[in-house]
Amino acid sequence: MMESVLARVDADLDQSLARLFALLRIKSISADPHYKQDCRDAAEWCARTLTEVGIPATVRDTLGHPMVVGHYRGAGEAAPHVLFYGHYDVQPVDPVGLWDRDPFDPAIVEANGEKRIVARGADDDKGQLMTFVEAARAWMAVAGRLPVNVTVLFEGEEESASPSMVPFLMENAGELKADIALVCDTSMWDRRTPAITTMLRGLLYEEVFVRAASHDLHSGYYGSAARNPIHVLAKVLADLHDEKGRVNVPSFYDGVPEVTPAQKAQWASLGFDEKAFLRDIGLATPAGESGYSILEQVWARPTAEVNGIVGGYIGEGAKTVIPAKASAKVSFRLVGDQDPEEIRRRFRAFVEERVPADCKVAFVTHGGDRAVSLPGDSPWIRKAQRALSEEWRRDAVLIAMGGSIPIVTQFKRILGMDSVLIGFGLEDDRIHSPNEKYNLASFHGGIRSWARVLEAIAE
Amino acid sequence: MMESVLARVDADLDQSLARLFALLRIKSISADPHYKQDCRDAAEWCARTLTEVGIPATVRDTLGHPMVVGHYRGAGEAAPHVLFYGHYDVQPVDPVGLWDRDPFDPAIVEANGEKRIVARGADDDKGQLMTFVEAARAWMAVAGRLPVNVTVLFEGEEESASPSMVPFLMENAGELKADIALVCDTSMWDRRTPAITTMLRGLLYEEVFVRAASHDLHSGYYGSAARNPIHVLAKVLADLHDEKGRVNVPSFYDGVPEVTPAQKAQWASLGFDEKAFLRDIGLATPAGESGYSILEQVWARPTAEVNGIVGGYIGEGAKTVIPAKASAKVSFRLVGDQDPEEIRRRFRAFVEERVPADCKVAFVTHGGDRAVSLPGDSPWIRKAQRALSEEWRRDAVLIAMGGSIPIVTQFKRILGMDSVLIGFGLEDDRIHSPNEKYNLASFHGGIRSWARVLEAIAE
Repeated sequence: MMESVLARVDADLDQSLARLFALLRIKSISADPHYKQDCRDAAEWCARTLTEVGIPATVRDTLGHPMVVGHYRGAGEAAPHVLFYGHYDVQPVDPVGLWDRDPFDPAIVEANGEKRIVARGADDDKGQLMTFVEAARAWMAVAGRLPVNVTVLFEGEEESASPSMVPFLMENAGELKADIALVCDTSMWDRRTPAITTMLRGLLYEEVFVRAASHDLHSGYYGSAARNPIHVLAKVLADLHDEKGRVNVPSFYDGVPEVTPAQKAQWASLGFDEKAFLRDIGLATPAGESGYSILEQVWARPTAEVNGIVGGYIGEGAKTVIPAKASAKVSFRLVGDQDPEEIRRRFRAFVEERVPADCKVAFVTHGGDRAVSLPGDSPWIRKAQRALSEEWRRDAVLIAMGGSIPIVTQFKRILGMDSVLIGFGLEDDRIHSPNEKYNLASFHGGIRSWARVLEAIAE
Repeated sequence: MMESVLARVDADLDQSLARLFALLRIKSISADPHYKQDCRDAAEWCARTLTEVGIPATVRDTLGHPMVVGHYRGAGEAAPHVLFYGHYDVQPVDPVGLWDRDPFDPAIVEANGEKRIVARGADDDKGQLMTFVEAARAWMAVAGRLPVNVTVLFEGEEESASPSMVPFLMENAGELKADIALVCDTSMWDRRTPAITTMLRGLLYEEVFVRAASHDLHSGYYGSAARNPIHVLAKVLADLHDEKGRVNVPSFYDGVPEVTPAQKAQWASLGFDEKAFLRDIGLATPAGESGYSILEQVWARPTAEVNGIVGGYIGEGAKTVIPAKASAKVSFRLVGDQDPEEIRRRFRAFVEERVPADCKVAFVTHGGDRAVSLPGDSPWIRKAQRALSEEWRRDAVLIAMGGSIPIVTQFKRILGMDSVLIGFGLEDDRIHSPNEKYNLASFHGGIRSWARVLEAIAE
C-alpha cells in the first residue's frame, strides 16, 4: 500500500504544486488590517480543499482572523488520533523593493541546480502545511482512507502573535484534543538530513514608546534645551547588553539551564559549519554571548533583540526636528524555565529606571510564551524518526530550534498534548525576508514523508 | 533733518498703510505653482514701488520666482553702501477655515487694546520689508536723498527653500556686494524692547547608515549569533553625549567661545522665563548641557540631535526580524568658529570606531554651514543699536537665535558680507499660521526705526 501511495504522490506532483500556487496567490498578511479579507479568503480556500480531500472542514470565526477545523474519523476507534497544525497567514512583504518578483505571484525558479518555489509563504507555512494535505489526498485516492484519525487545525494569526488561539483552544478543547499533535513549521537539518525538533525557545515581545515634548519641535529653537526621546531610547537600548553580549535586565538568567555535556557532544557531532552559517548572511563574526558556540547561542541561550525602531523624520533629505516621541519593538528568546511574565515586569522596570522624569513611557505587549522541550524517547518520536529515515535514506536527527512556536506551548498547557515537530524547510529559505522560497525537493519529499509518517504512527 | 523725516513718516502713515495693503492683496504663495503669476505680480509691484520711491528697480528672472533688485547711488562715493534684504513671497494659507477673515483682504483689527494689521504676510515679510521702503520714501520726500547708498534685494522663494538664491548671488556677486546687509525678517525682544540679532548657530546635517547581514533575518534562527545593526546604532547614538549633556565627538568644542560674563549678564537681564518656555512644550526640566541657562544652551552652545531614526519592522504588531540595516539622521548646531568640515570628519570617525568589523557604515551629508555672528562692538551694530534705542526709548538688546537664516550664511559665504538683523515682529504674530498679524505699532515704529538707522549708519 505504501508504495502505491508514494507513486500516487509522485504522479500527482504537478497538480499538488498548482494547488499550492493557488494558496500562495492569496495575500493573507495577518499583521496588516488591510489584508483582513485576504485572510478570510485563504481560510475558505483551506476549508474547501480539506473537504475535497475527505477531511470535512469549516471556517470558524474568532475576534481576529478565522480558524479552519476539519475532522476525519474513518480510521476507527482503535486507531491513533492526531491533530495536524499549520498556519495559512504569512509575514508582511516589506521592503517589497528587495524582492526579485511579486511576492504573491509564485513561480518555480531554478538556481544552484535546484528548483525553488518562490513566493511569500512558500515555506512559512503554506508550502509546509500543504505537504500534509497532499499526503492525505494521496492516501485517500489510493486507499480510500487515512491510516489514522485526523483533526486539522489551521490558524491565520501565527505571524501576528496568535491573539485568538488561546481562547479558541479553551472553548474547543474537547473537539481539538488528540493523542498527539503534528506540527509542520520547522526545518530539516540540511538538504539531505530530515530532523525532528525537540526543543523550542520561548518568546516575549514588547513594544516601548517614549514621549517627551507635547509636539514636534524645531531643533534650532529648542535643540539641547528640550529632551529628545530618540536619545533616551538609544541609551536604554544600548544598555540592554553588556560587553560580553549578556542581557542586562536583572534576574534575566533565572531558570536558564546550562547546556549539558551530553548536549554539547551531540550538537558538536552534527558538524555544524559556523563559518558557512555566517558567510551565508554576509557576516564573519558571531555577535552573541561569548563562551558559547553558535548552535548553543541560537538553540539553548536566551536573547534580547531590537526588531524595529522609529522616531522623528525618516523621509528623504533633512528636517531639523526634535520629535515628540520614539518607539522600539524588543523581543526576548527564552529557554528552560524562564518566565515571560516575570521578565516582562523586569524589562519594563529596567526601561522606566532609565527614562528621565520629563518623559512618559508606555508599553504594549505582543505576547509571551515559555520555552518547550519534548522527551527524545517518546514512541511518537521514534516512529516518526523511522519513517523519515526511510524516506530520506539517512538517519533523522533530533535538534533544537532558536525560534518559538507558541502553539506547541499552548497545546501542552491547554490541551495537555505533546507535539512532534517535523518540517522540510531549509535554512536558506529566507522566511520572513524578501525572496522567500521552498525547494521543490522539500515540497515533494515532505508530501512523501507525511504519507510514510501517517502509516508509521498507525502501527 | 531727522525730526522732519520722522514727522513725514507720521503724517504719511495712512498712505504707507494703503500701499502695504495693496501688496498684501497679492496672493504671492511661492510654494504653490498655482500662484506663479501672483508671485510675478508681487515682484512687479515691488519694482514699481521702489522705482517710484527713487530706488530704480527691475524684476530679474530666475528658474523659479523672480528677484527684485534696485540701486540707489545718490549718497556719493564716500557714503556707506548697504544691501537691504526682504522677501515678497508668503506662506500658504491653509487651513483657510481657521482664519477669521480672508487672508488676502487686509484690515486693521482692534484687539487687546492694540491695532493689528491682519493678513497673510502682514508680518512675514511684506509688513517688515515695507518698513524699510516707507522709511526711504520719507527720506526722499523730505531731503531729496538717502543718507547711504542702497541696494535692495527682494526674493520670492524664501518660504519654499530659496532654490534660486545661491546661483543668483554667485552670478551677480559684483552687483550685490555692499558694506553690510540689513535683513528685516526677525522679531523684537518684546512689545517695548527693540532687538538686534547678532548670532545665528550654524548647522551640520549627516545621515548614517549601518548595515550588517546581507538581508533581514529571522530573530529565532539568528538571534544573538548575527549582528543587529539597531544595537550598533543605538550604542553609537547613546555615546554621542556624556552624562553632563556634552557632545562626545573628539575636538567638537574646538572653536566654541565660552559665553562671556558680559553676555551672561546681558542675557540674564532679559528676564527670560525658563519655566514658561518649557511648560509651553509640555516639559519641565532643561535637557541640555549642565551649567548653562536655557538661553545660553539654545543661543550659544553647540548641540548634537538625532532628528530621525529607523530600522527593522515599524508597522503594526510584531515581526521577529533582525534587520539588515538601520539609519539615523544626526544634526549639529554650531557656534563660534566650529568648522563643519572638520566636525563631519570627526563625527564619521567617531561612528566608524564604534561599528564592529562585520558592519558596513555609510554616510550622506545634507549640508554644513558655519555659525555667523557679528561682534557686539562692531560699529554697524553700535550705530543701529543707538538709533533703535532712541526710537523706542529703551535700550535695544543684542540677542542670538538658535536656528539658522540661510540668507545670512549665504551673504557671508558668497559675498563675504556681514548682516545686521533688525525686525519688528512679535512672538504672537502667528507667522506661518492662520490670522497672521503685524501690530500697527510695529509697522509705524519700524518705519521710524529705519529712518533713524539709515542716518546713524551714515555718520
